[in-house]
Amino acid sequence: MTTFLTLTTDFGTVDGYVGAMKGVIAAIAPDVRVLDLTHDIPPQNVRTAAFALYRSIPYYPPRSVHCVVVDPGVGTERRALALRTEAEQFLVGPDSGVFSLFLPPFADSYPQAVALEVARWWRRPTSLSATFHGRDVFAPVAAHIARAAAEGPVDLAEFGPAVDDVRRFGMPVPIEDRGAYRGEVVSVDHFGNAVTNLPERWVQHAGGETQVEAGGRRMPVVRTYGDVQVGQACALVGSSGWLEVAIRDDSAANRLGLAPGIPVVLRKRP
Amino acid sequence: MTTFLTLTTDFGTVDGYVGAMKGVIAAIAPDVRVLDLTHDIPPQNVRTAAFALYRSIPYYPPRSVHCVVVDPGVGTERRALALRTEAEQFLVGPDSGVFSLFLPPFADSYPQAVALEVARWWRRPTSLSATFHGRDVFAPVAAHIARAAAEGPVDLAEFGPAVDDVRRFGMPVPIEDRGAYRGEVVSVDHFGNAVTNLPERWVQHAGGETQVEAGGRRMPVVRTYGDVQVGQACALVGSSGWLEVAIRDDSAANRLGLAPGIPVVLRKRP
Amino acid sequence: MTTFLTLTTDFGTVDGYVGAMKGVIAAIAPDVRVLDLTHDIPPQNVRTAAFALYRSIPYYPPRSVHCVVVDPGVGTERRALALRTEAEQFLVGPDSGVFSLFLPPFADSYPQAVALEVARWWRRPTSLSATFHGRDVFAPVAAHIARAAAEGPVDLAEFGPAVDDVRRFGMPVPIEDRGAYRGEVVSVDHFGNAVTNLPERWVQHAGGETQVEAGGRRMPVVRTYGDVQVGQACALVGSSGWLEVAIRDDSAANRLGLAPGIPVVLRKRP
Repeated sequence: MTTFLTLTTDFGTVDGYVGAMKGVIAAIAPDVRVLDLTHDIPPQNVRTAAFALYRSIPYYPPRSVHCVVVDPGVGTERRALALRTEAEQFLVGPDSGVFSLFLPPFADSYPQAVALEVARWWRRPTSLSATFHGRDVFAPVAAHIARAAAEGPVDLAEFGPAVDDVRRFGMPVPIEDRGAYRGEVVSVDHFGNAVTNLPERWVQHAGGETQVEAGGRRMPVVRTYGDVQVGQACALVGSSGWLEVAIRDDSAANRLGLAPGIPVVLRKRP
Repeated sequence: MTTFLTLTTDFGTVDGYVGAMKGVIAAIAPDVRVLDLTHDIPPQNVRTAAFALYRSIPYYPPRSVHCVVVDPGVGTERRALALRTEAEQFLVGPDSGVFSLFLPPFADSYPQAVALEVARWWRRPTSLSATFHGRDVFAPVAAHIARAAAEGPVDLAEFGPAVDDVRRFGMPVPIEDRGAYRGEVVSVDHFGNAVTNLPERWVQHAGGETQVEAGGRRMPVVRTYGDVQVGQACALVGSSGWLEVAIRDDSAANRLGLAPGIPVVLRKRP
Repeated sequence: MTTFLTLTTDFGTVDGYVGAMKGVIAAIAPDVRVLDLTHDIPPQNVRTAAFALYRSIPYYPPRSVHCVVVDPGVGTERRALALRTEAEQFLVGPDSGVFSLFLPPFADSYPQAVALEVARWWRRPTSLSATFHGRDVFAPVAAHIARAAAEGPVDLAEFGPAVDDVRRFGMPVPIEDRGAYRGEVVSVDHFGNAVTNLPERWVQHAGGETQVEAGGRRMPVVRTYGDVQVGQACALVGSSGWLEVAIRDDSAANRLGLAPGIPVVLRKRP
């Protein structure tokens, strides 16, 4: 059975660190298909990595393995983890918060999670060299899981003891206040669209004709960009299920000064 | 039979949109080989995407599928298309002009083309969420075509009705004027080489000793960079068959102020 | 047997030149696994490419093929080469110095090397077009070697005559001077860590408590970043076996003004 192993890092590719990880994987699991998810996460930006995973991973088949190395604590005693998601996929990476969006309340149940403490799955380091966790721990463990997953069920307990306190970053909680739903921008994408923490179901709940205020501007809630003119601001439920603020054919982040933390209010049109 | 599916987008990789497309493809066609062509097309730059495809696709084996998502009209009612090229390859993407260089006069005959209107090949969208065409239409259709192509001939008619009015951008037409061939820059590459609309056959036709004027400079037409000194400007027929203006080991675009639309004149040396 | 073919270039991906190379490889060796090592080498930067290879290639399985196109002499009569490493891997690329770190004194013995002069392994160029060596020589030769390697031993002599004068760049030689080990920065990575030419064995030889001077600052030699505070400078043996200067969670290159050529001194703590 063909299995997939994706890579997500903040390494860029030019130094050869990602190339080293691919070599380690090729040597352990030559028949697994390696796919680059991204190597352009801004250095140590756990939140951006979490969103990249959140937008991608739901579409992969069961038994896929996703290896993530984004870690502000690189070189410290930070735990290394492997998780099994509700959809029988595997996540391997540091306990840095990158898996936040695969934990409740974003997932329905707590995933099986283990700390990677069984050294026989690691690459043996050489003498004095600093361990490079991407190459020496995460890549080999991910490759071993993917190879095993191609054969049948995987028992994560072989890789280390269970944990139930996987680190997550706080996601600001939106509030309802006399018919107004008050949230904020949590992420800005490549096109300058500002993703908020207001979920699709609140838009449904607000019902009927709604509008959004953000960056000092009022704008309609629409179904698609095609419902507004070029250059006009709008809000819509994005492809991952959250309300987004956008400008057709332009950057809402630049034009409206939107960035994580900026308030966004959804209400019925008066 | 091993088949290939390439991806060309203006998404960058950091947001996870490309990762989502790869997941959709992995789930539908696990044995197809996915290759990144590029995700660095400048946002909505149809012309740059068309040249990237033009320089790449002729070298792939028959039955390869190329999925392209570069679209200034994202979110509008823009048609989604699939094309079959003369060399029995498949192109899948929006009707935004990205396929211009695979239509006459650049191709010898009009390709078979269909509008992607048969929804059973799409991903089923969720409730209110905006459809993300890359993930929900182009990736699944490309994956289904690639999977079918691995088995035998593909009938594009299963995916939607035939069309014969695929959009293309205007390519400026060069003119001959008393022995001078007047064209212009149409594209600048990563190294600062300026590709013109003057085809190889005109260079042959001008014959013998020729020279080029561009950016206020006269330069020889040579066969390879090695024929001029480091830092010297020259013109040569590039690897895709068009006259290019270059400076050995430097950027002709920067040094000579070359950009799309700047005139380039080819004539016999006096 | 599954074999791997990696690609390392300074082309970027947006122009489609890398896409063309992948197409050529797909057509010749469809069952070989193609992996991107990097396409972000700064234009013609042979030294950066050499370090990317040095950090990656040791981890690949035997019979892997690594195709490299970084060449300040593109378009000249520069030789094209193929090398076989001590670990039975293959390197294919221009004689530009990119293979420096796979030659003595960095390798224990001189690799088998040939000049690629047997044209039957190349792509046949079209009429006047300049040969694009990446697409027309390096990609097809690498693909033919990888396809052959999947079947059994490869005889490089089929590709051209042996050479024993592969070009290499000078690596500054560190010196010992009354108990001080004087080296310099040779490379700066994506995170701003400054790699020096001081090898691991010298750190062992200096022994006991050591310190480093670089960029006007004294700092301890530690085993991992976790041994210093956030924002503190330190030196440590990096994952490839050379002393590196780093600042925990910051860029040592930016903070301390480190760049290739800047002196770094290792000595016993007084």
